[in-house]
Amino acid sequence: MAVLALDLGGTKLASAIFSNEGEILSRHSLTLDGRTGSEAGALIKSTIQHFLESGIIDSIGIAVPGICHQHSGTVWVPNIAGWDDYPLINELESVSKGIPVAMDSDRACSILGEWWKGNAGDCSDAIFMAVGTGIGAGILIDGKILRGANDIAGAIGWMALNKPFEEKYISCGNFEYHASGEGIAKITREWLVKHESYVGPLRNISSERINAHDLFRAYDARDELAIKVIEECISYWGMATANLVSIFNPEKIIFGGGVFGPAIPLIPQIQKEGAKWAQPISISRVKYEPSALGADAALYGAASLNLHSKI
Amino acid sequence: MAVLALDLGGTKLASAIFSNEGEILSRHSLTLDGRTGSEAGALIKSTIQHFLESGIIDSIGIAVPGICHQHSGTVWVPNIAGWDDYPLINELESVSKGIPVAMDSDRACSILGEWWKGNAGDCSDAIFMAVGTGIGAGILIDGKILRGANDIAGAIGWMALNKPFEEKYISCGNFEYHASGEGIAKITREWLVKHESYVGPLRNISSERINAHDLFRAYDARDELAIKVIEECISYWGMATANLVSIFNPEKIIFGGGVFGPAIPLIPQIQKEGAKWAQPISISRVKYEPSALGADAALYGAASLNLHSKI
Repeated sequence: MAVLALDLGGTKLASAIFSNEGEILSRHSLTLDGRTGSEAGALIKSTIQHFLESGIIDSIGIAVPGICHQHSGTVWVPNIAGWDDYPLINELESVSKGIPVAMDSDRACSILGEWWKGNAGDCSDAIFMAVGTGIGAGILIDGKILRGANDIAGAIGWMALNKPFEEKYISCGNFEYHASGEGIAKITREWLVKHESYVGPLRNISSERINAHDLFRAYDARDELAIKVIEECISYWGMATANLVSIFNPEKIIFGGGVFGPAIPLIPQIQKEGAKWAQPISISRVKYEPSALGADAALYGAASLNLHSKI
Repeated sequence: MAVLALDLGGTKLASAIFSNEGEILSRHSLTLDGRTGSEAGALIKSTIQHFLESGIIDSIGIAVPGICHQHSGTVWVPNIAGWDDYPLINELESVSKGIPVAMDSDRACSILGEWWKGNAGDCSDAIFMAVGTGIGAGILIDGKILRGANDIAGAIGWMALNKPFEEKYISCGNFEYHASGEGIAKITREWLVKHESYVGPLRNISSERINAHDLFRAYDARDELAIKVIEECISYWGMATANLVSIFNPEKIIFGGGVFGPAIPLIPQIQKEGAKWAQPISISRVKYEPSALGADAALYGAASLNLHSKI
């Protein structure tokens, strides 16, 4: 028998059939095409119905880009209009023909994916730091996901890392403002406006189109602006991971999300920066590693949800 | 029957007999008088033997000011020479006549004490922030203590909260340097040296004797230096608790240790400062409260250890 895994993003729905041993038997991807509310739900339901025709599925797991309320089976997904309190489990079970459906947040699924088939396989205490458009963490404690009192734990993009507080942190948090993919782009745009004398490669990209990947390309070419922005990010990533290490004393910090990616070569520098700040014994014992599963981490985790809940 | 609880400090050993319902039947305190190594152990053992004569003790719990390795039963206590890897459980069980002995760190015991008989009784997710000479946290997640891979979790005094890194943080961490009892005193001494024109009440205390309590007294008298130092602390306590709230999404942050204490009236200001930085939903749901048990929090927690381990 096999597992159907779904990874719902803000703009697309990735899906795959996994063998119970963790091998991908087939995979699929659909764009949401701006679907909202029940239409977004209908797309997921039709995907489930399609895969169930294979007759080999005996469990279903879905990774959700938002907050999953496990007790009620509802989700809050900021990027899908109408999903403020969407009854995802009820909706999906209406088409799953009695096959159990499990869900978790994409960040929780990412650490579970790494635990099942990636770089956290030997860990009971590990943290997946996802740095993409935003920043969040999937946190495994003694083999269990940290959820918090309202299922919002792991919101590390809100970490306070440098004084003073500024108004611009209100919408996203200090850490995310400075060191997320969107943050990197935004800070670069601000810098370009303030420094008219700069004539490097980033000046040739129209300001509103600049993204984190442009920065990393310019960094590799030793562009002064890119070096400045990325070194600042390394400092923030170092402080944030130091805090996670001092607080949780984990076995591993695993870096994923779209930025890791191109920032993977910086991990040794981030660990060096973290070592300045963190509890000395904890930092000497922890390993900093990139995700082994990359963009598939949450999909693997979604596949492992029913398996993991039995532990 | 009854529980014998012991709270080992850096300089004294507090002990009490609790009824199983949590009432203190009798209590006792001894100074360590500089005892180290096996002599410190002997003092605890003779205390246990003394209390066992009552014939009513059926479990023993001890709070330890350091790291407790639960698997090996050994402890690391920096303030007691020779206790780098002291076999505390073995030693105490050698005199306990078959009565089970449980131990945990003082910070873990403090949150367990608040959970048993204090302000965390209705919580499964709560954090005790202990601000005394140093800073640490006892963290309860879904009713269980967070330990980490090497039993060092909760070392929040090492939290990185403000750039740049300075050499002076190496021995204690950025947060502890600025906002512990010892930190408050140290920063005041530095300030007095730099500002010779200051003639307020803190100038009348010999510099090396200034402690956090002097600062709070001067703060209450609206002394300019004390206001400056304490407001800086409020800012650090706000950022640190904001980070704990964003990361853990707890039901309560409970403030204890010697500084809370005199800093209890500042808790609303700390929460206001925290609200600037933290994940907005999590901070709107959390309660900031003082310890209900004060200096007895760890003693209550030690009493609850055998009870709690059965949950």
